[in-house]
Amino acid sequence: MKELSRRKTPKTVVKRLPVYLRILDNLLRRDVDIISSRVLSDETGFTAEQIRKDLAYFGAFGTRGTGYNTGYLREKILRIIGLDKQTKIIVVGFGHLGHALTRYNVYQNPYVEVVAAFDNDPAKLHSDIEGLEVYPLEKLPEVVSGQKVKVAILTVPADEAQKVVDLLVENGITAILNFAPTKLHVPEYVYVHNTDLTIELQSLIYYSQEDEKYHQQ
Amino acid sequence: MKELSRRKTPKTVVKRLPVYLRILDNLLRRDVDIISSRVLSDETGFTAEQIRKDLAYFGAFGTRGTGYNTGYLREKILRIIGLDKQTKIIVVGFGHLGHALTRYNVYQNPYVEVVAAFDNDPAKLHSDIEGLEVYPLEKLPEVVSGQKVKVAILTVPADEAQKVVDLLVENGITAILNFAPTKLHVPEYVYVHNTDLTIELQSLIYYSQEDEKYHQQ
Repeated sequence: MKELSRRKTPKTVVKRLPVYLRILDNLLRRDVDIISSRVLSDETGFTAEQIRKDLAYFGAFGTRGTGYNTGYLREKILRIIGLDKQTKIIVVGFGHLGHALTRYNVYQNPYVEVVAAFDNDPAKLHSDIEGLEVYPLEKLPEVVSGQKVKVAILTVPADEAQKVVDLLVENGITAILNFAPTKLHVPEYVYVHNTDLTIELQSLIYYSQEDEKYHQQ
Repeated sequence: MKELSRRKTPKTVVKRLPVYLRILDNLLRRDVDIISSRVLSDETGFTAEQIRKDLAYFGAFGTRGTGYNTGYLREKILRIIGLDKQTKIIVVGFGHLGHALTRYNVYQNPYVEVVAAFDNDPAKLHSDIEGLEVYPLEKLPEVVSGQKVKVAILTVPADEAQKVVDLLVENGITAILNFAPTKLHVPEYVYVHNTDLTIELQSLIYYSQEDEKYHQQ
């Protein structure tokens, strides 16, 4: 047994685990029982050495010269990430993006259970998603504390984000996937992952420019 | 004049430019005319040294001991990214996510012009977004080549993504923001940025687990 804090695992390693998981899922669907780090490398674009190092980080799962048992490795990674049981999540902000993310997670993501969505706009307090309630924000403390939800997806406007985050943290949320284009202030034990679609689009635009334009500056 | 290829600028630098831009926009709204790298550091979380290095990479814009002129720096960064003029983009896949991204870019992103959206589902060939046409995919070559569009946002299902990408590349798209959860194969001159929401959510779940659970493995 290794004493290893989740928080101390390098973020780059944590980011690659779901990528491995997806590849292993695909391989299992194609009945591939044994997988070498070289094949994993072809599928992921990471080097075979990197992959061996990543997996060894959580314990040695492979057999030298043979490779990894696909199903066993998949189960291990599911457990490491914490996907061996359903994780309860809430979606805060039920605009188009919140709606898209909710639908995706309700219908296509077996690893999570969307407990509820929240929005302050009375017009959005209805849902066409099976079994999903959309509540006003004042009901958030009751739902989050009552159901011990730890994970939230945040898609509220930038100028409301910090207030909502304070409410989330107060009620026990410890991990936030933030789509609001603003820097959030949280206690150190809360993990925030910022997904800023504007920033991603802008760096894309940078690369779409002709090199000539740049030279003229 | 510096001879510098866009493709050779470190990706990490390119990623920080839109962050600077956002901060500068906010500062200008608050009528802050001069900004030091120390304040930029507080706002971004990057070190002042990193910021000075990043900006010096594109030419020296600051005055020692005083700082940067906010408006001038903003204009410079707009030009470097390529946001000094509107960039034409298309959205391929007009499901909930495509719809959310399109609305966002039509109504809230002054730097881009959404030329059209595309979907293969006849039920989606209508739009509640002002001035936006949703076309079937067979109209894509005409629109993209005709209007010389270089940038595409891709939100089609994973199993259709590669076929659609081939069509995009064939017709002159050189930068793709990909939301389809699959690895795309493109020629070297095409820039793909993968935004994988499942992977982001899964790493978030990893961090939401109690440390105890991890020790028991």
